[in-house]
Amino acid sequence: MAKLLIKNIELLHTPNGEMQNIAVEDNKIVYVGKDVPADFAADEIVDGKGKLATAGMVNTHGHVSMTLLRSYADDMALMDWLQNKIWPIEDKMDANDIYWGAMLGIVEMLKGGTTCFADMYAFMEDVARACAETGIRANLSRGLIGVAPDKDVKLAENTVLAKNWQGYDNGRIRITYGPHAPYTCPVDYLEKVIAEAAANKAEIQMHLCETKFEVDTVVKEHGMTPIQLMDKLGMFELGTIAAHCVHLTDEDMDIMAAKHVRVAHNPQSNLKLASGIAPVAAMLNKGICVGLGTDGASSNNNLDMLEECRAAAMLHKATTFDPLVVPAKKAWEMATVDGAKTLGFADTGLLEAGQQADIVLWDMHKPYWYPRHNKLSQLVYAASSTDADTVFVAGKKVVEAGKLLTFDEEKIYAEAEACTRKLLNK
Amino acid sequence: MAKLLIKNIELLHTPNGEMQNIAVEDNKIVYVGKDVPADFAADEIVDGKGKLATAGMVNTHGHVSMTLLRSYADDMALMDWLQNKIWPIEDKMDANDIYWGAMLGIVEMLKGGTTCFADMYAFMEDVARACAETGIRANLSRGLIGVAPDKDVKLAENTVLAKNWQGYDNGRIRITYGPHAPYTCPVDYLEKVIAEAAANKAEIQMHLCETKFEVDTVVKEHGMTPIQLMDKLGMFELGTIAAHCVHLTDEDMDIMAAKHVRVAHNPQSNLKLASGIAPVAAMLNKGICVGLGTDGASSNNNLDMLEECRAAAMLHKATTFDPLVVPAKKAWEMATVDGAKTLGFADTGLLEAGQQADIVLWDMHKPYWYPRHNKLSQLVYAASSTDADTVFVAGKKVVEAGKLLTFDEEKIYAEAEACTRKLLNK
Repeated sequence: MAKLLIKNIELLHTPNGEMQNIAVEDNKIVYVGKDVPADFAADEIVDGKGKLATAGMVNTHGHVSMTLLRSYADDMALMDWLQNKIWPIEDKMDANDIYWGAMLGIVEMLKGGTTCFADMYAFMEDVARACAETGIRANLSRGLIGVAPDKDVKLAENTVLAKNWQGYDNGRIRITYGPHAPYTCPVDYLEKVIAEAAANKAEIQMHLCETKFEVDTVVKEHGMTPIQLMDKLGMFELGTIAAHCVHLTDEDMDIMAAKHVRVAHNPQSNLKLASGIAPVAAMLNKGICVGLGTDGASSNNNLDMLEECRAAAMLHKATTFDPLVVPAKKAWEMATVDGAKTLGFADTGLLEAGQQADIVLWDMHKPYWYPRHNKLSQLVYAASSTDADTVFVAGKKVVEAGKLLTFDEEKIYAEAEACTRKLLNK
Repeated sequence: MAKLLIKNIELLHTPNGEMQNIAVEDNKIVYVGKDVPADFAADEIVDGKGKLATAGMVNTHGHVSMTLLRSYADDMALMDWLQNKIWPIEDKMDANDIYWGAMLGIVEMLKGGTTCFADMYAFMEDVARACAETGIRANLSRGLIGVAPDKDVKLAENTVLAKNWQGYDNGRIRITYGPHAPYTCPVDYLEKVIAEAAANKAEIQMHLCETKFEVDTVVKEHGMTPIQLMDKLGMFELGTIAAHCVHLTDEDMDIMAAKHVRVAHNPQSNLKLASGIAPVAAMLNKGICVGLGTDGASSNNNLDMLEECRAAAMLHKATTFDPLVVPAKKAWEMATVDGAKTLGFADTGLLEAGQQADIVLWDMHKPYWYPRHNKLSQLVYAASSTDADTVFVAGKKVVEAGKLLTFDEEKIYAEAEACTRKLLNK
């Protein structure tokens, strides 16, 4: 068994300057506290002096390979943006593009303190390979567009993905089914997807209630909201990660709470795409599990989970005119343990014995970390994702002194840039 | 004359990889372009390879020494927060605390690409000294509370401040008068402040229309909005920087446009304090000059102008359901040249010949800067203030490789921490 000791480290809830220790065996935390277990013979010791240890952040929604389209098209109306910019270039992407786009997104996330992410896109075998190589934790689904001619091929790909990768590396990779959205998936296709997911004991991730237009369209066609429709189709019995949930009725939220639908809240994507502001305070009041996500880099335009955490902590105070809503503590839980629950990862997202050793050491020697009144509040309201100095996933050190250890960063930037130039010239 | 050449640098609007040059004489930019002026004998040459040059950002509203109260009290109701936490500790602050708090805020701003800021607080001679020593550009005012027993002493301090510092170092420091807010300044006091400012040819900075409570109170007492009241008192004839402006009527905005009131929009402070969301799209449509600000670090909790720029670009899209509102280009102008106009600095905020040499070189070798589709969009929507590598104010290099050159950073952190511990034990 590989034994790791992180010593002289500060924690969110311990007094300033009080030194703590974290002991890790293989992929799990076995001890957190002031003493070092006497019989713990560490293979590696990391000195955490001046740093703060937290659980890694969990990005509950995105399309990681869209990093290749970062700032390719901004400040446009949604349909103009999709039809004239995003969809035409996405059509040209091949497995190589998807792989290097995923690598670029993963290096950004790991270096920024995000140790786990959700994905829904194409060529997912290549995304899974990128996760395997870099060491990041992930919940992957094949994006399923039910109005596409190759809809059945896509569904079959999702099942192959599940067969190949479900539970990989002690459960570091999970596979879900990814029906894209109510407006791109007719009911008969959704029924097929649900049956196939059930047959493979997999959960679902889906865009739901992202825009008012989507909800209005579904209500007009089916006489019920997207949440009511998915409930009627039995989707929620499988376990569902619902991305966005900006436009919900009170009854929708009651259904979601009763059926344990978990929400991927993407505050910045919803702002930038002018979708609106999700009723997060109301969802939390109903007891719904809400994680946070960045969405794809073409609608964000980075994969910075600390920004999303801050946005979630700030935004809902203003829309409710209540400064007590989504306090720093809740925002941080949403960014970590609630996100892990959202993605179905057990024993993940807390810095305590028995949990997966997904750990970030934050460098606090930055101006906005002084004076040190409240580390939790400073992390959520003041710090930068670039403060992530050392990052472990499942006990493996993947970032050290801000540098990726598991892959050549320079090669990733060069290949991502090359793929993009090739795509633009296609 | 000191001559500086920044060579091999990229600009926001030039093609990727195309090398540009910036020539600076003393405090001003004299040339920007592909060639180097033949007769330009530089005393110093800075190689900008891999970096992007922009104008420095301008923070149009704040209370810089409140960095000492960063994360001291968060997630509280406004009056509970002010009465039980902020005001009692502020009462204990002395000139030494204010000085080191200002130093801490200034090092944070300069290292984050902000070259100019506005301030309204106490012991402003000590803030001015911190500006003089660090080299940052500033617009300073004495905070004037008209309901305080020492209101006339404060007003006299503001006049002494103007006499000592107005126009210091080629206009690097400007002095304004700082009546705090409509609800802390009775009309007779405001009349005195306006007369005194006029006598000293100084402008005004003031919190205006920050909360619904403030507006309701003024309307109830005076039968007119805060904007109408200040207009009636003749304040706007002097030139006014109005901070916040969250709750405005259409008529208020017409008055502001006609009287050239400049607005300091603080999106994150307004969110976190649950004040609301300012009608920025409407103000811009009316032709009102809107700059951006962080507000104090106790209500933000950092002084990161790139965050405010991003928030301004994203937030108003969602509240108007219009993705074309406040595009990246406008948000960046608000963060730079419009902010400089807001604070009354001429020839500041643009990267072109004839302008003040307030310049930031951004390190683009970060994952979120790849691939490089659109530098402006990536700066506004994806980059981090920690990417600021080298910073010049008025032609003087104040930050290099992310380190402050004009003062010992370590001393600032230690002294700020010491002041804070002393305050907490008072």
